[in-house]
Amino acid sequence: MSPYIVERPRFILFGDSLTERSFSEEGGWGASLAHFYGRRVDVLNRGYGGYNTDWVMFILDDVFKGCNSQNTPLVTIFVGANDAALPLPEGNEHSSTQHVPLSRYRENLRKIVHNIRERGVTQLVMITPPPVYEPGRKEWQIQRIGEEEAKNTAIDRTNAYTKQYAECCKEVALELDLPVVDLWTSMQETKGWGTLLFNDGLHFTPEGNQHAYNAILTTINSTYPNLKVEEMPMQFPHFSEIDFSNPASSFGNLP
Amino acid sequence: MSPYIVERPRFILFGDSLTERSFSEEGGWGASLAHFYGRRVDVLNRGYGGYNTDWVMFILDDVFKGCNSQNTPLVTIFVGANDAALPLPEGNEHSSTQHVPLSRYRENLRKIVHNIRERGVTQLVMITPPPVYEPGRKEWQIQRIGEEEAKNTAIDRTNAYTKQYAECCKEVALELDLPVVDLWTSMQETKGWGTLLFNDGLHFTPEGNQHAYNAILTTINSTYPNLKVEEMPMQFPHFSEIDFSNPASSFGNLP
Repeated sequence: MSPYIVERPRFILFGDSLTERSFSEEGGWGASLAHFYGRRVDVLNRGYGGYNTDWVMFILDDVFKGCNSQNTPLVTIFVGANDAALPLPEGNEHSSTQHVPLSRYRENLRKIVHNIRERGVTQLVMITPPPVYEPGRKEWQIQRIGEEEAKNTAIDRTNAYTKQYAECCKEVALELDLPVVDLWTSMQETKGWGTLLFNDGLHFTPEGNQHAYNAILTTINSTYPNLKVEEMPMQFPHFSEIDFSNPASSFGNLP
Repeated sequence: MSPYIVERPRFILFGDSLTERSFSEEGGWGASLAHFYGRRVDVLNRGYGGYNTDWVMFILDDVFKGCNSQNTPLVTIFVGANDAALPLPEGNEHSSTQHVPLSRYRENLRKIVHNIRERGVTQLVMITPPPVYEPGRKEWQIQRIGEEEAKNTAIDRTNAYTKQYAECCKEVALELDLPVVDLWTSMQETKGWGTLLFNDGLHFTPEGNQHAYNAILTTINSTYPNLKVEEMPMQFPHFSEIDFSNPASSFGNLP
């Protein structure tokens, strides 16, 4: 009989709205991971829409409380899309925007990784902010504030600006010896990515979710062989392994 | 500021393959619940494909270990579809089938509810086995064993036989004063239900998942007002409630 487990470890998906919405009916990448690793792990959504890495600092200890290498074999860190919101024209970083300067984003990324690693959780995957499709952001803005007002209002994010945060994320991953899923680059390699992968220039369509899911799963598999699904035992015996005439014997390994 | 929580309670979805597959990309009803209750609860999938209520007895204590009214405000119990597999012609109940006689299914249901309630978890929702679309089961069988062999092989489930288990589930729910989602009945009220809601006569299509999700959520809302999503606090402040100029103050309620 194949080995099985009694308690499930968990994958923690940590991030902003791109994680919070990852169980959506639009083929959310988090739900897809949960399905793929079904019976093996719990995939916990720890996405906090709108949060930047400054605000994340206030919740980090609570989110990862009790985590260790045994119960948490994987954490994905997917932050920066809000840090990369443009600073207001005045350049006042305390003004009403989600913007976090690049240097502090870098520091915050290091702190996040350090906080998680200190608990013994070592298998992390970093994910860059995805590209920004600017016409999609403009359309979203028009829907929100109306065509007239939108005429004189800059969009909240640009692709060039977000690129700096994606690059920074990759640099920190390299520095900390962690795998990184570079969505900023890979998504733009898809023809028609702006409307195919994004529904408002920032959040994923079903195709965008599929892209993110494939990219993240590929990185998990290539970096952490112990997380290949076929290497991970199921919780309780698969029903095909139950001895129908003496089922108790099939559950005999229970502690 | 709205109240918020630091630790998320969880909904536990307990059952067989109809639960195990509930996070599938086919609009799985469990993932939909997880999305709907996003930021508020963790929706844990405790579906074990192929299991009948006899086998479930061996894992019950482990599945619900540590659960109490605080950390587990909802459990769905969705079993019986495998118990209702037809007994083999010989009528030998120890033969190679998932079948569990009706009287024992009834006893097992009571034991499951009792086990969960003993832990202080009181908010349960029972779900009847869904109807069986027999032509769909036949097609599935043909794909599995070939047309020739299928000619002389009875299908594994019938709708009339499953009806008894659905009725039994409703009776136990009434007896134990629990809400029940009668999928066996409601799904058959949908025109063309056999192929619209099921992909193999037994498991849900996206439309089937949507039906199950709506029915289950409606019952949760009408039975347990404290589980209405607007009554449930989010984990950590919504970002619109963060004071951008003094974010620490917005997290001041953290213990």
